[in-house]
This record gives sequence, C-alpha cells and structure tokens, in this order.
Amino acid sequence: MSFTLWFTGLSGAGKTTLSRKVFFELRERGLKGEHLDGDIIRANFSQELGFSQRDRDINVRRIGFVSHLLNKHGVISVVAVIAPYAAARRQNRQLIENYVEVFVHCPLSVAESRDVKGLYAKARAGVIPNFTGVSDPYEEPVEPDLEVRTDLNSVDECYAQIIDHLESRGLVPRKPDCRPCLTVAEEERAWREHLASLGYAILK
Amino acid sequence: MSFTLWFTGLSGAGKTTLSRKVFFELRERGLKGEHLDGDIIRANFSQELGFSQRDRDINVRRIGFVSHLLNKHGVISVVAVIAPYAAARRQNRQLIENYVEVFVHCPLSVAESRDVKGLYAKARAGVIPNFTGVSDPYEEPVEPDLEVRTDLNSVDECYAQIIDHLESRGLVPRKPDCRPCLTVAEEERAWREHLASLGYAILK
Repeated sequence: MSFTLWFTGLSGAGKTTLSRKVFFELRERGLKGEHLDGDIIRANFSQELGFSQRDRDINVRRIGFVSHLLNKHGVISVVAVIAPYAAARRQNRQLIENYVEVFVHCPLSVAESRDVKGLYAKARAGVIPNFTGVSDPYEEPVEPDLEVRTDLNSVDECYAQIIDHLESRGLVPRKPDCRPCLTVAEEERAWREHLASLGYAILK
Repeated sequence: MSFTLWFTGLSGAGKTTLSRKVFFELRERGLKGEHLDGDIIRANFSQELGFSQRDRDINVRRIGFVSHLLNKHGVISVVAVIAPYAAARRQNRQLIENYVEVFVHCPLSVAESRDVKGLYAKARAGVIPNFTGVSDPYEEPVEPDLEVRTDLNSVDECYAQIIDHLESRGLVPRKPDCRPCLTVAEEERAWREHLASLGYAILK
C-alpha cells in the first residue's frame, strides 16, 4: 500500500535528517519510494515562488499533487517541507488517500540554537524575511498522525518511533528490530546518488 | 521500459485527442501510465503561471521534472502541452532518459478554422494575449521523434503512426493490429474516471 509521509516542522527541527533515514530504510525493505525535500523542490520545481503565505501554500499543495500522483502508481512519497499553514496541510490530507503527518517538534529556541545553515542568524538580522518561527507563523499541527520531539529524544529514538508507527499501521512490513539497515557512510552515499537521480544539474 | 511521450503542437492541432487515445491504449496493454494535459496541469498545478516565455518554460520544465520522477518509478508519462519553445523542450530531452517527442503538425489556418474552444477568435479579438501562433511564437520541432499531420491524415491514421513508432522502438509490446482497444464510449468513460482520479475538486 502506498502512502505519503509528510515531515512538518520548523527549520532545523530535523525534518531532512529523519525523513532521509526513513526513506532509505523503506528502500532497503524493498519498497518503492521518492524523497521530496523542501530546499531541493524549491530550487528545481518552484523557482518562481517566494515565501508569502500564498506562495508557500501553492508549493505545499503542488508537492501534495506530485505525492498523490506517485502514490497512485504505488510509489511512497517522503516529504520534508515546513508546510507552516494548517489549511494547506489539510487540503493535502483530503487529496491523498494515505496521508501520514509527522510533526517534527522542537522548540524554536532549540532549533535556533542549532542553526546548522546559519539561517536563523540571517532571519534575526533581517537579511531573510518571512522566516518561519521568526517573522512568519508556524501553525503547529493539532492532530498529527505522529509527533516526535527532537529536543528530548535522539535521532535514533525519533526514527524508531516513526518506523514503529508505520509498521503498526501496516504501511510497511515489520522487521525484527528497527535499527536502520544502512550505516552512516552508506546513507551518505545513497543520498548523493538520490540527488543525482533527480537530475538537478539541468534544472538548477 | 518507461518513457515520456510529449505531444507538442498548436492549440487545436489534436494533441489532447491523440494523446488520450494513446494513453488508454497503453493502459489496455497492461502498461502503467499517467496523462498530463496542459489545461489540467495549469489549473491544478501551475495556477500562478501566465503565458510569458519565462512562465511557459517554467511550466514545461516542471512537467518534465514530474515526468522524469514518474519514469524513474516505471510509469509512462503522456504529456499534451504546447511547449512552444525549443530550448525548454531540449532541456527535457536532456533530463529524461527516454523522451519521445511527437510533433502534432497542423497549419495554423487549419487549427484556427477548427477553433473547438473558440480560443483563436478571442486571440484575434485581442481578448486572449500571448496566444501561440497568433500573438506568440511556436518554434516548430526540427528533429522530433515523430511528426504526424492532422490536417492530412485522420485521427486513426495519426494514432496508428504513433503506436507503430512506439512498437518499433520496443517501448510498447506489439499487438496484432493497432486499432484502439477501447470504443469511443469506453474512452469517454475512462477519461472521466482519469480526471476524477487526479482529485481536482480539491485543487481547483
């Protein structure tokens, strides 16, 4: 059975890290899947969109439409996109038969203290406008399918909760334990191959 | 083997009619496919885009990206979109491993005399700006994979040429004859079901 697994949450909450790990695990278990990452999709697919509410919602619904198309043909869609507005998320839930929303929850202060890409600093300095959590709202999911707390739990713990959830709903076949199949190095290599398979070079 | 079959040509040349027929034939032969139609995609997927060269090219490359994703997962993409600019078509050819371009060729005067949707009349009256062939260019394909002449040949003849082409390249399995599997009524019903499966109600 196919489904869309949507990771929503603040920048720096851990959406890409977690979704990537889950994505490769699904592949290792023989399932067909696609990973759609916010930054990548914007660069290749939504270049003309900005960060107003309207543009963000168009982007979120568009990725919902692509996920729906993929699901229709038996391909799992794993999405890591902030999706800050509840209404657009709800529209996707209506469109997509099996929509699984994972709220990657992490208080703003913690996400900001990580600031892996230096974006929060730029947002606070006013260099980046419309930054979710700083100068733009994030409407927290009220009823996500699953909530993981990346400030309280490790990546591996959150990862295990997600796999557990998918297994218990019968969306992915069970495995004796839920440690990831891939080593860190293998995951890195697989990620680079995945990026190449999307054919950016041309679309950037 | 998966591929993208792109029907390019003027409005009224017969892109939707032919592509729809081919799409259902592929399905009847047990192949997995998706149909992406210009008008439908614009309404559901590219609502914010206009008809400037930049916007048209974004739309064409975006549909190329979706086709590439579908192909990657074994789903044939059948596209009926004007795609008037050669450069954007060329980019898709580079991105997509098996890109088959069908030039649905029909002189402007003939397409205009059909004017099924009354669009040419509006374009001539200046009500619709940037109309391909009237107030916007159409760069005819110089080296399409296949050219069909809808002014000289019937729909069934053009259809047979396309199926022949796909069979001879080994992209679709051969059948004893290349008459369509579906009756006209069956095709109509299948089309309505296909539209419903795209889940417009929500996206419109």
